[in-house]
Amino acid sequence: MLTLFYTPGACSMIPHIALEECGAVFERRPVDFSKGDQLKPEYLAINPKGRVPALRTDRGVLTEIPAILGFLARSFPEARLAPWEDAYAFADLQAFQMYIATTIHVLFRQISRPESFADGEPAKQALKAKVPEMSNRYFQLIEDKLAAGGPYVHGDSYTSSDIYLFVFGSYLRIGDRGDLACLPHIQRHRTRVRARPAVERALIAEGLAQTW
Amino acid sequence: MLTLFYTPGACSMIPHIALEECGAVFERRPVDFSKGDQLKPEYLAINPKGRVPALRTDRGVLTEIPAILGFLARSFPEARLAPWEDAYAFADLQAFQMYIATTIHVLFRQISRPESFADGEPAKQALKAKVPEMSNRYFQLIEDKLAAGGPYVHGDSYTSSDIYLFVFGSYLRIGDRGDLACLPHIQRHRTRVRARPAVERALIAEGLAQTW
Repeated sequence: MLTLFYTPGACSMIPHIALEECGAVFERRPVDFSKGDQLKPEYLAINPKGRVPALRTDRGVLTEIPAILGFLARSFPEARLAPWEDAYAFADLQAFQMYIATTIHVLFRQISRPESFADGEPAKQALKAKVPEMSNRYFQLIEDKLAAGGPYVHGDSYTSSDIYLFVFGSYLRIGDRGDLACLPHIQRHRTRVRARPAVERALIAEGLAQTW
Repeated sequence: MLTLFYTPGACSMIPHIALEECGAVFERRPVDFSKGDQLKPEYLAINPKGRVPALRTDRGVLTEIPAILGFLARSFPEARLAPWEDAYAFADLQAFQMYIATTIHVLFRQISRPESFADGEPAKQALKAKVPEMSNRYFQLIEDKLAAGGPYVHGDSYTSSDIYLFVFGSYLRIGDRGDLACLPHIQRHRTRVRARPAVERALIAEGLAQTW
């Protein structure tokens, strides 16, 4: 049995959509950050990092989105979310996902958790102010990749990288973290992925189908 | 033919050691950051991100350390650098590596490239000043993991995660990025990995065998 620990609208939406794409039977357990659930002993026993997502399996708990997505792709091969059988293509897919994880994902934390980067109100304001510039720069590489060979991240086939980009591209709509208007390929990609039934199911489960 | 683009002492040392552990035949191409080689058109054509490492293969160029390590583990299965035949164990190994990539690795960039986080000298100083506190916190989770079940990161077997930890644990000796004295298991782990012939070969090739 698989159990996803998630927070509505957070990056845990990525494995949530992947589980729906796989047709997996799984349980959903919300972690309410507004109540500090992520730092309570019950949750730290599941994920000592105090973050979402976490995927509980029969073998143990997995964390870190690209690792979870790799596990799901192999556990549900018929969903074809990653070309696991091809060592090069799989590594290339993972490199794309890790690029988002180590650049864009971390960058957005400068808005949500500036206190983990530096102390003092002026530094926190400087951290937030820098986000749009760096976000546009990081996303531009992805825009160029889609322009060179879409419609999906890795070409003709929809993979877990498209779910990853969909969720992070959607955050650009918030307005304080980059300019979606300058990224037409990413915009069209977002529309294409948003239309998938598995995405709709995950958004309904997270209570976000009307606004996302 | 494999070609590793690396900078002596940088995180590219991780795939460098892994290539040595695999007994791979590969070419080394230094990228001199002091001359700005990483931002020259010749290198950006290889890796548009302007970073090391990059591993050129017959199929194309791979980036992002955990992705490169996964590719090497599968390309040289006899080196047993990752349990890739076991979907759960492989994802668990990758989660460990991605934890370093998204927390410790990014944190150390606050020292080497503070301008990518915020503008202004006061903010840059605040970013650097925060590193030891957060580094100790991030490394403590790894210290606890080694204390609970070593001697290697994933138990009895040496894997690519040990190379990852070795290189980042070694950075703690520099003094401005955390306190190695408070991490006895990581210290012992460092000594154990440093003694491996493949590590010595990579350090010699990077001109660092005397000081590392």
